[in-house]
Amino acid sequence: MLTKYSGCTLGCDKFLNEIKNHGLYSLLFQGNFGIERENLRVDSQGKLTKTKHPGIFGGKLDNPYITVDFAESQIELVTPVFQKIKSVHSFLENLHDIVSVELKDEYLWPQSTPPYLKSENDIKIADFSKEKAGIEAMEYRKHLQNIYGKKKQILSGIHFNFSFNENFLRKSYELTKQKQTYGEFKNGVYLKTARNYTKYRWLIVYLLGASPAAHKSYLNECKANFEKLNDSYSLKYGVSLRHTACGYKNKEEFFVPMNSLENYIDGIKKLISENKIIDAREYYSPIRLKGKDNKNLLDSLEKDGIQYLEIRTIDLNPYDKTGFDCRDMYFLHLFLIFCLLKKCDGKKDCIFFEEDSINANLNQEVVAASGHTRLRIMDKNGDKDAEVWANEILNEMEFIISAGDNINENYTESIKFQRKKIKYPENTYSCRLIQDIKKSSFIKFHLQKAQEYLNISRKYQFSLKGYTDMELSTQILIKAAIKRGISFEVLDRKDNIVRFKKHGRIEIVRQATKTSLDTYISFEVMNSKLVSKLLMSEKGIKVAGGEVFYSKRQALEAYERFAGKPVVVKPNSENFGIGITIFKNSDYIEDDYRKAVEYAFRSGGPILVEDFISGEEYRFFVIDSKTAAVLKRIPANVTGDGKHMISELVEIKNNDPLRGKGYRTPLEKIEIDEAVKLYLALQDKSIDDIPEKNKIVYLRKNSNISTGGDSIDCTDSVPEYFKNKAASAAEAVGTEICGIDMIIYDLERRSSESYAVIEANYNPAIHIHTYPYQGRNRNIADIIINKLGF
Amino acid sequence: MLTKYSGCTLGCDKFLNEIKNHGLYSLLFQGNFGIERENLRVDSQGKLTKTKHPGIFGGKLDNPYITVDFAESQIELVTPVFQKIKSVHSFLENLHDIVSVELKDEYLWPQSTPPYLKSENDIKIADFSKEKAGIEAMEYRKHLQNIYGKKKQILSGIHFNFSFNENFLRKSYELTKQKQTYGEFKNGVYLKTARNYTKYRWLIVYLLGASPAAHKSYLNECKANFEKLNDSYSLKYGVSLRHTACGYKNKEEFFVPMNSLENYIDGIKKLISENKIIDAREYYSPIRLKGKDNKNLLDSLEKDGIQYLEIRTIDLNPYDKTGFDCRDMYFLHLFLIFCLLKKCDGKKDCIFFEEDSINANLNQEVVAASGHTRLRIMDKNGDKDAEVWANEILNEMEFIISAGDNINENYTESIKFQRKKIKYPENTYSCRLIQDIKKSSFIKFHLQKAQEYLNISRKYQFSLKGYTDMELSTQILIKAAIKRGISFEVLDRKDNIVRFKKHGRIEIVRQATKTSLDTYISFEVMNSKLVSKLLMSEKGIKVAGGEVFYSKRQALEAYERFAGKPVVVKPNSENFGIGITIFKNSDYIEDDYRKAVEYAFRSGGPILVEDFISGEEYRFFVIDSKTAAVLKRIPANVTGDGKHMISELVEIKNNDPLRGKGYRTPLEKIEIDEAVKLYLALQDKSIDDIPEKNKIVYLRKNSNISTGGDSIDCTDSVPEYFKNKAASAAEAVGTEICGIDMIIYDLERRSSESYAVIEANYNPAIHIHTYPYQGRNRNIADIIINKLGF
Repeated sequence: MLTKYSGCTLGCDKFLNEIKNHGLYSLLFQGNFGIERENLRVDSQGKLTKTKHPGIFGGKLDNPYITVDFAESQIELVTPVFQKIKSVHSFLENLHDIVSVELKDEYLWPQSTPPYLKSENDIKIADFSKEKAGIEAMEYRKHLQNIYGKKKQILSGIHFNFSFNENFLRKSYELTKQKQTYGEFKNGVYLKTARNYTKYRWLIVYLLGASPAAHKSYLNECKANFEKLNDSYSLKYGVSLRHTACGYKNKEEFFVPMNSLENYIDGIKKLISENKIIDAREYYSPIRLKGKDNKNLLDSLEKDGIQYLEIRTIDLNPYDKTGFDCRDMYFLHLFLIFCLLKKCDGKKDCIFFEEDSINANLNQEVVAASGHTRLRIMDKNGDKDAEVWANEILNEMEFIISAGDNINENYTESIKFQRKKIKYPENTYSCRLIQDIKKSSFIKFHLQKAQEYLNISRKYQFSLKGYTDMELSTQILIKAAIKRGISFEVLDRKDNIVRFKKHGRIEIVRQATKTSLDTYISFEVMNSKLVSKLLMSEKGIKVAGGEVFYSKRQALEAYERFAGKPVVVKPNSENFGIGITIFKNSDYIEDDYRKAVEYAFRSGGPILVEDFISGEEYRFFVIDSKTAAVLKRIPANVTGDGKHMISELVEIKNNDPLRGKGYRTPLEKIEIDEAVKLYLALQDKSIDDIPEKNKIVYLRKNSNISTGGDSIDCTDSVPEYFKNKAASAAEAVGTEICGIDMIIYDLERRSSESYAVIEANYNPAIHIHTYPYQGRNRNIADIIINKLGF
Repeated sequence: MLTKYSGCTLGCDKFLNEIKNHGLYSLLFQGNFGIERENLRVDSQGKLTKTKHPGIFGGKLDNPYITVDFAESQIELVTPVFQKIKSVHSFLENLHDIVSVELKDEYLWPQSTPPYLKSENDIKIADFSKEKAGIEAMEYRKHLQNIYGKKKQILSGIHFNFSFNENFLRKSYELTKQKQTYGEFKNGVYLKTARNYTKYRWLIVYLLGASPAAHKSYLNECKANFEKLNDSYSLKYGVSLRHTACGYKNKEEFFVPMNSLENYIDGIKKLISENKIIDAREYYSPIRLKGKDNKNLLDSLEKDGIQYLEIRTIDLNPYDKTGFDCRDMYFLHLFLIFCLLKKCDGKKDCIFFEEDSINANLNQEVVAASGHTRLRIMDKNGDKDAEVWANEILNEMEFIISAGDNINENYTESIKFQRKKIKYPENTYSCRLIQDIKKSSFIKFHLQKAQEYLNISRKYQFSLKGYTDMELSTQILIKAAIKRGISFEVLDRKDNIVRFKKHGRIEIVRQATKTSLDTYISFEVMNSKLVSKLLMSEKGIKVAGGEVFYSKRQALEAYERFAGKPVVVKPNSENFGIGITIFKNSDYIEDDYRKAVEYAFRSGGPILVEDFISGEEYRFFVIDSKTAAVLKRIPANVTGDGKHMISELVEIKNNDPLRGKGYRTPLEKIEIDEAVKLYLALQDKSIDDIPEKNKIVYLRKNSNISTGGDSIDCTDSVPEYFKNKAASAAEAVGTEICGIDMIIYDLERRSSESYAVIEANYNPAIHIHTYPYQGRNRNIADIIINKLGF
């Protein structure tokens, strides 16, 4: 039986044993993670921009993912809560990508200390004048400006929000004698963790601190203490300017005890009543206790208890695109587990007095300002060598890991990663930064990093990290939603079903284009080629002629009617091109026809035998009775270079990161299968042939993107006549969103003699238009989002 | 080359050869058929009813299928145009069924001459006062009343509308020298057919005539000429009172020539200008030329030519439920082909003079009044023995058939059928009627026939003849639409896709419940058990607990969590019960579980392992946020009688016409498959056992109606609590129409402890509620029709 679990008398090892023995160890390592990250926007010279927060991101108080902090040019990225560190990191990266690529000639400044500031006037307080409840937000910022000045307020950083797994807490509570309520127990867990975090946070500042310098345009009073380094002033032996007196701090050191929740609440109330702060959020502590309703924090804590912790001592790491290396995240998580488990030396000692607080603050301060000297860290028993103490802590953290069987190796790695920084301080971000600034300059180095990250964001912008197992169309739609501050929730990952919410509006979407905009019956209509062609014909749309057959016998008997004509044999129900045989020429014999019929019938339902129409194949994406994009689809092919074999050319083409498998990338890899070999053989070619330079070799008959075809955006070049026909075709089948496949044999002749609609697709992919092989990207996702009423 | 095809110089055989040689023979036998049938409504005494036309059939000028003719109690049934005689006959039967079962204590009078009429005042002119354009309709009827009297106007009959296949006409035209236009050619075809029909129609009157008697309450002036027969007056040797002077005729014989269309139009215009008739429709000719717009017939004929022929010399046949024996229909069709092909003796003769018209009318008159004497029929060359001439015509018709290879044997049969009537006149309807009236009475005989037909209509009312290859739910919905005068069109027979139209409103429906009322995404939501259960849970609906697995490995690893608990293993996507394994008890072992997981994964997607909840299974049909019907579903079973073996009891149960295969009947036949044998074996039974009297033996675990389960309507007995829960469940998944499957373990306890929703079905059958095994029929189709906005 676990006793006084939330107290301090149990040793770390004993506690851990209890957890292990009751099967709670894996739950201990579960938790909920969320990140908020601030970045200043800079121009191509590394100057703070004066532009407005981009309108594309919607209202500043409205977008739960992308907002602003103190200044108009200080973007704040906020992730939802995730159960996995990898997920929260990926999401942060997505937010970074989304914002980066939207900025016009601007960059996200990857450093906690500000870029070049001509004068304090360049810093504009965030403009909330158009927002509901915006007045309060602006007044609060004016207050901060008056007290702290604007330069300090734009120091940027990362907040890491964390809670333990609720099941872990409940089950742990059940192991105690339950003299206290579950709520009291839970508060105790978070209070102990927070106290230990306060005490040991100097180590986090040392390991993660990444602001050893500030641009020379930063605070004058700081220059005096620092050393000049190119265009910046640096803390020669320091780690994090943000955690020094020149950093983001209250005017004086406050002591708010955390021995009980009442203590904490009373402490903050006292500061407010003494007019030292105007609000709980103005208390800049290294760790905050958070509740259900953080707008009314103190009341909420009192009523519902502590829900999670907010860790605030993380600098932006310029060496990571996201500003937060994933290894540091794993480490921080383990560190918080350590803070929970860490035994106290005795009951009395575990209570945190003002003296302990002063020591802890002092330790942070000296580490921040001169962490790279041979430091001694204050303990209540005197001072201690920092490196020795750091290694002690890491040993204890390693001990925690060693207690598990299947522990995620990221935790082990994270310890090794930090040990290297302790043993060889040149590996710390702070040391590396000093070197890099020396080599170029403060502005140049950070700007170059920002540009580098932007290039990566652009290159891989098509995918949504953490969701790459879902279809690319879905990833794109989610991304568009995030950009506009529409919150989302994946309801069924495998089926690509996502729920979007904003302002009380709720829409569920499957595979990006299956929405509430369309009716159930429009789907059924499109699913029947027979019916959709009938409806289109009625509206004067030219469709490929043909006949439906319900039995093999019927279809085979009809051979004479088709013999000598180019035809397509295919199932009546759409099925991703499966079951389709194309006789482009009239030279097929009855046996070929029979095989094609049998192949088509393998899909179950009735089959169609349609006129084959030669011409180029286009996909029209129609939404809201308008053609939004047109794609020419070209069968899988390679272009010769006079050197490589066809098989090699395929491999080279497949190496493009835009090509993948299973609709997760803009294009699909070309698979050299029997069909390809056969098709080459028909052209008297083989995969070992070396095509001459610039010679295009087609590898398949069909032009589906899904079998490696190329997509070429033609939205601007295809005449309105055909776009209107596609829109009418969509209208005929009664759909809001669909893909119309059309063969056009003569773009110049605008008559029913020059085209034929092949089919209406009820589930058109959007990624092929968003990221075509050639031509302009078409932002279909935004049109869908608009049409959904967001 | 075919010359002067529309003229008269070619012999029938020569013409036929041309048709055969140019591959048009099978097209010759194609055509378009439509029927209009009038019936008086009578009460259980055989008296004309004074009740109003039933409101359920909608507006009288509105319903294209069910309307009234001259009198309020004279229902007129109108079929759409069909390409097959079988189809038009079936549809007429459907209309008959729909109307018969709706009438309350009334019958459709199966005889052309009226039932018992106390006085002429009993006949009420059809009331169109509530209809748009109703004034004109009533005024016209008043005019008819004034001229002809009401009794004559309620003589009822059948009109047969016919046109040749358009392709046949076009291709035939292409074979001519094309000196005339296609329109002229087509007019010529119909004019020749009409002239010959006029000339030879006496044979049709003889063979199909079925009104040899009238009730004694009919016209007084007729009694004088006729012979008393029980409660009627009969034409002793006659065939059709309706075609005599006492019948439905103009006041005098008019001659409207049909040698050219101009002739015809001018002839009618002359009658109108001379005030002999007020309108083209008042010209009661045996055959009418019809146009595109029959409300403005003459203008329309002038503008667009003749479109089809209306044959008006068909009496109601009391020996057929539909009033028109299918064999007579085939014969009539062949007769019209004969009329087209029949050679004339010379060009001069082929033109129809007034003399020819008088002869033809006279021939009809004598056949109608005294067809069963040894008749001689007038020809322009003198008179001719009727039987000899009849056989000559039949020989020529047989010759036409003999020219084809694969001629439909119904035509051959139809000739045989008529030959019997000619050779043995006692086989004619007229002779049989005289005998039957002698045996009982005019009223009794016809009333008994009406009752007999009503019973048949009631027994098989669930199906829609001619559409029994479609799902029963679809048949039911179409029937409901017909009843209300919503026109329909089957767009895809196999997929059960139907289009409904009325007053400009158009709705396409698949399988009765897939409509425009539901969104595409609601279907996708219901298709994912994972998502639908999540959404229902969020709304406080109790759902069966469970877990989703995306891989076999995951599912198999989870065995320990389920071991010892009753569970259901099933695919995440609904699939008609395929892939489901139920472990009702906790005694399954890991190997059983593994097999169940593998079975479920065979359907492709992820699988669910759910708590098995024991209780009774109910299907709630929810539409428009309300539960419209509740069905208890009982697994396939038989009840012992102490005599028969289980296998025999199954056979007996399967003999019920309500049980069929493939959702075409209200219930499904029980198939004795391996699963049944296995399930019996688990109960230590075999199919050879003889269960004791009243002992119920269950044959399957699952209660699906589709595997032979019984459906018991419980709409009135299931507490509102559960009905509301079902409605909320439907709302949670965002659907207008769905079937909620719920297990209820305690009908009395109304709490979340007493039920669990198993799933929401996006395609709930309606036939199971419309025709349950036990309990009241629930008319879901009408609710759907209403909700669709009709």
